Amino acid sequence: MNCQLSTSPDERLARQIGFIIEIDKAKQVLRRTLLMDGSRLENDAEHSWHLAVMAILLAEYADGDVDLLRVLKMVLIHDLVEIDAGDTFVYDTEALATRCEREERAADRIFGLLPPDLGSDVRAIWEEFEEQATPEARFAAALDRLQPLLHNYQTEGGAWRRHGITSDRVRERNQHIAAGSPTLWEFARSLIDEAVRRGYMPE
Amino acid sequence: MNCQLSTSPDERLARQIGFIIEIDKAKQVLRRTLLMDGSRLENDAEHSWHLAVMAILLAEYADGDVDLLRVLKMVLIHDLVEIDAGDTFVYDTEALATRCEREERAADRIFGLLPPDLGSDVRAIWEEFEEQATPEARFAAALDRLQPLLHNYQTEGGAWRRHGITSDRVRERNQHIAAGSPTLWEFARSLIDEAVRRGYMPE
Repeated sequence: MNCQLSTSPDERLARQIGFIIEIDKAKQVLRRTLLMDGSRLENDAEHSWHLAVMAILLAEYADGDVDLLRVLKMVLIHDLVEIDAGDTFVYDTEALATRCEREERAADRIFGLLPPDLGSDVRAIWEEFEEQATPEARFAAALDRLQPLLHNYQTEGGAWRRHGITSDRVRERNQHIAAGSPTLWEFARSLIDEAVRRGYMPE
Repeated sequence: MNCQLSTSPDERLARQIGFIIEIDKAKQVLRRTLLMDGSRLENDAEHSWHLAVMAILLAEYADGDVDLLRVLKMVLIHDLVEIDAGDTFVYDTEALATRCEREERAADRIFGLLPPDLGSDVRAIWEEFEEQATPEARFAAALDRLQPLLHNYQTEGGAWRRHGITSDRVRERNQHIAAGSPTLWEFARSLIDEAVRRGYMPE
């Protein structure tokens, strides 16, 4: 009787490759953010790459000692659930209400494609990001908010203008940058102030 | 007399942010590779993100113990020089001849935007990748070759067909995958064999 529960080496690699093929779809999940030259919307793969480079360059501003490897894993995989669940605009309160359930289902399917040990690891990283209980998760989330601020500033209001977002909502939605990095929140606040002064969004 | 050579905290952050804004351009550097659904060409930011997730998932197949954090930094920044130098198709021997010089100039300008200490760190990571003298660099390069193979296979020949590439050139150009990961080279070879059997490219 063969009761082998673990997968064979070939099957293991096949599942890893299957996952790598599946996540190509993240290159087509569009966000609300415009590229910095305003030419088109950004997608999840580009956004995640940008956050990862930002993590490397800005790690010195994280609140507390952070494990950079863990931050990188987090920002690289944090949006994979959007392959099924779609991008939820942070200013869309209706969509935010159903986001959690949609993303949990997506996590079951997408991380379930991996060999079980790897699937559990990746899911744990995603849940850590969602729960915001560690310095790594809070720093990753700070970057995840700061990056679209930079895009919106560079495009003279970009997604803010398109969706009629006012500065009080921008401040409210982004203030948790402070929990991941007081320095970056101070910078973000001055960027928001300057955006208002320049008329990129109404006060 | 104020002989301060180091930059002020504000100037340091301004240079880091300036670099983060500059590299948004990587989202518009097109490669020869099609997305896996064949809908459009892939860009450098998407490619680099894909490699980074692959590094996390496939690290167990690297030849020797590799520092995953260093591999991630390498794959995330390895193509930034293409913002100035453009993507060089691996089967374009003419362009390959001038690639080194073009990319050195690009590295001077782009990494020079960062505060000097960070600029040196990032440049050292890029040079390590180019020199292929460490297990980390060889594993990163193996992923950098394997990823377009997967894309070309999934698109039934994609860039190979468009540019009339034969399987002997694909084997020759990709055999250094073996130096980074014998397991992944074995897999890549079987993928190339199957691609030929299916008529995705001529033998």
